[in-house]
Amino acid sequence: MKPVKVAICGLGTVGGGVFNVLFRNASEISRRAGRPIVIEQVATRTPNPDCETSSVYMSQDVFDVIENPEIDIVVELIGGYDIAYDLVMKAIEAGKHVVTANKALIAVHGNEIFQAAREAGVVVAFEAAVAGGIPIIKSIREGLTANKIQWVAGIINGTGNYILTSMQEEGKTFEEALAEAQELGYAEADPTFDVEGIDAAHKLTILSAIAFGVPLSFENVYTEGISRITIDDIQQADSLGYVIKHLGITRRTEEGLELRVHPTLIPKERLLANVNGVKNAVMVSGDAVGPTLYYGAGAGAEPTASSVIADLVDVARAMGVDQASRVPYLAFADQSYDLPVLPMEEIETAYYLRLLAVDRPGVLARVATILSEQGISIEAIVQRDSIEGELVPIILLTHVTKEAAMNEVIRQIESLADIAGGVMRIRVESLNDQ
Amino acid sequence: MKPVKVAICGLGTVGGGVFNVLFRNASEISRRAGRPIVIEQVATRTPNPDCETSSVYMSQDVFDVIENPEIDIVVELIGGYDIAYDLVMKAIEAGKHVVTANKALIAVHGNEIFQAAREAGVVVAFEAAVAGGIPIIKSIREGLTANKIQWVAGIINGTGNYILTSMQEEGKTFEEALAEAQELGYAEADPTFDVEGIDAAHKLTILSAIAFGVPLSFENVYTEGISRITIDDIQQADSLGYVIKHLGITRRTEEGLELRVHPTLIPKERLLANVNGVKNAVMVSGDAVGPTLYYGAGAGAEPTASSVIADLVDVARAMGVDQASRVPYLAFADQSYDLPVLPMEEIETAYYLRLLAVDRPGVLARVATILSEQGISIEAIVQRDSIEGELVPIILLTHVTKEAAMNEVIRQIESLADIAGGVMRIRVESLNDQ
Repeated sequence: MKPVKVAICGLGTVGGGVFNVLFRNASEISRRAGRPIVIEQVATRTPNPDCETSSVYMSQDVFDVIENPEIDIVVELIGGYDIAYDLVMKAIEAGKHVVTANKALIAVHGNEIFQAAREAGVVVAFEAAVAGGIPIIKSIREGLTANKIQWVAGIINGTGNYILTSMQEEGKTFEEALAEAQELGYAEADPTFDVEGIDAAHKLTILSAIAFGVPLSFENVYTEGISRITIDDIQQADSLGYVIKHLGITRRTEEGLELRVHPTLIPKERLLANVNGVKNAVMVSGDAVGPTLYYGAGAGAEPTASSVIADLVDVARAMGVDQASRVPYLAFADQSYDLPVLPMEEIETAYYLRLLAVDRPGVLARVATILSEQGISIEAIVQRDSIEGELVPIILLTHVTKEAAMNEVIRQIESLADIAGGVMRIRVESLNDQ
Repeated sequence: MKPVKVAICGLGTVGGGVFNVLFRNASEISRRAGRPIVIEQVATRTPNPDCETSSVYMSQDVFDVIENPEIDIVVELIGGYDIAYDLVMKAIEAGKHVVTANKALIAVHGNEIFQAAREAGVVVAFEAAVAGGIPIIKSIREGLTANKIQWVAGIINGTGNYILTSMQEEGKTFEEALAEAQELGYAEADPTFDVEGIDAAHKLTILSAIAFGVPLSFENVYTEGISRITIDDIQQADSLGYVIKHLGITRRTEEGLELRVHPTLIPKERLLANVNGVKNAVMVSGDAVGPTLYYGAGAGAEPTASSVIADLVDVARAMGVDQASRVPYLAFADQSYDLPVLPMEEIETAYYLRLLAVDRPGVLARVATILSEQGISIEAIVQRDSIEGELVPIILLTHVTKEAAMNEVIRQIESLADIAGGVMRIRVESLNDQ
């Protein structure tokens, strides 16, 4: 069959990986795709020293590829919203298929992009936007089509997981672990997107849409980062049998959809609790299949390239196919709005609370009474031996309750005269994988 | 779009699961597939009390479905080789697409079946044949198309894993654990296929073909079961930092393909080492993506149904598509024979050896000399405190060496006067997942 001709826009880490893997594994890829996938053009302002581009048509302006009639598929690897958005929309308008690794773009502008793509009859593929090299979009969108998905929970930000692992295993503080991640190139100079959960929220938005058939709604994700987690929390969790992971969680309940990113205590024996360093893993539970888990590299040049190229092969196959026989962009033929996203106050989960109390008789009783008045059962209380004159840390594990009730509990505890400072609250999920 | 009409042949555990999930999740499945998937006929000799079949056309003879012009897809869930083989070949001949969960059929007759399907222009899908509900065929065949796959290693027989987990966690003997698995319905009355590794060999055959683009060659799988594993082995492995799992392993080396099923010591900290009970998990390592892992239920009515129905949705999409735009049956447009399957003697791996020695000075030295003469380094030797007059167990862990050299070592050790009985040999794999 005729070769498929692609343009790579952006030759940074991921672009370079796609370029190199497409060359290195050309024969393997061609045997799988049934036709060669050739790089017809590369558009970048910054050459990549890892790529031997002398035999390829290079241009500086990414919008050149739109004008190139030879190009079948535009591979958007620029990142960000501005140029990337324009490029993708213009490519669609020009009747070209698009492959992108841009989670922010899909999470924020995806509904509009897929609408335009549907009208233009082109494919927009985005496997690399979530969990790097793990074929999680394909697994949910095509592998679990029989299921009513119940929940999805994942470690979907490698930087955050690297930091938490480093705190857990080496006793580093958050700041030390972050600095180390930056030195190793795992974290950006401005780490906000990673450590404050925005990157994970982008990815969770996409996972939720394809799991439940709802539109992308990034604006509704509750997002909490890991910068407030202390070594003390990690050690307390450890002694209670838990590990702290930064998770994206989306769940379908009768009331609506949960959509939340936050640090989470999970039992040590879970597979997810043993996913360390920059690795990602996503659990998906369906009513027929039960819990499943997908693990691998969540970032990096070649793992991400693996997903981009898998998309290229899929698009190569879908090119000659009418729209009705293609896999829907977001897994469902229609994205239905019938399930509201629940406000965080409506979520039900268990909690870990850490408070600092003045060491006076009756503090524990007052805290326990506040919980009891809100109808919340306590699973464990740990009060450290007190040192005279010092504040005593108290750790509480509760049973499942509504976030609104917990907010009220925390408000009341913080107003107690015997309590110093704020209450540290971390949610606890069982995430059964058996 | 027009509904796709399917015939379910065989209404046992899996057939019943497919029947029930297709009804229960009909609206979800239809929203994903873009068209309804309806059960037009069920052919079975044995009604399934879990299925409400009164509204469905039932027949006794599975070959009836071939004659039914309404049927688009024949779902073969009979199992075994005889009738299943005839049914699948006749369905293909009649121009019907086929979905099957029959690993034995695909592993043994797949080359012939796919050749016939190619000529007839129909799809034969088999996701449910390997690892139950885990979308492992799709992940390798479509999700990792960018990669030269390096190796695949998996816990792909739930019964065997249940037995080993039960021995590990509850200190049961193999016989006790097997009896328990039979009581719980996890093992057949004749457990040979599961505990002797034949079922795993069927699945490994399929995984190897789609990973490496080679023809199915079940006859070349080295197969060793778990019935010789003792509690002592499990405890010795544990104290050395390992867990014993029954793995299917296929690896591409420069010399050829490894294709082997056997008990394996793997380091405790690996995710695979923590996959317990009847669950399955498959690791796939590719040159671009690195190691990935897929976990979930490896058997059972609804998990297996999940994969069968995912295939139905895929086939529904592929029906209106020309053959060149479909995913190749075995992942590659052509199955090339350029890589020979290595005989077991050519495999390189590390080893655990357990021997019983007469407690006389010099035994260890003689054993160590035999290893040294074959150029094999020893990683660990454990000799238990001896009890007067009793034989002493000696445990050895070696570095990586060729199986042929190890065979010679074992022959020589067994011929020593100080050694009682045979040498227990279990292979050791590091299976790095980082």
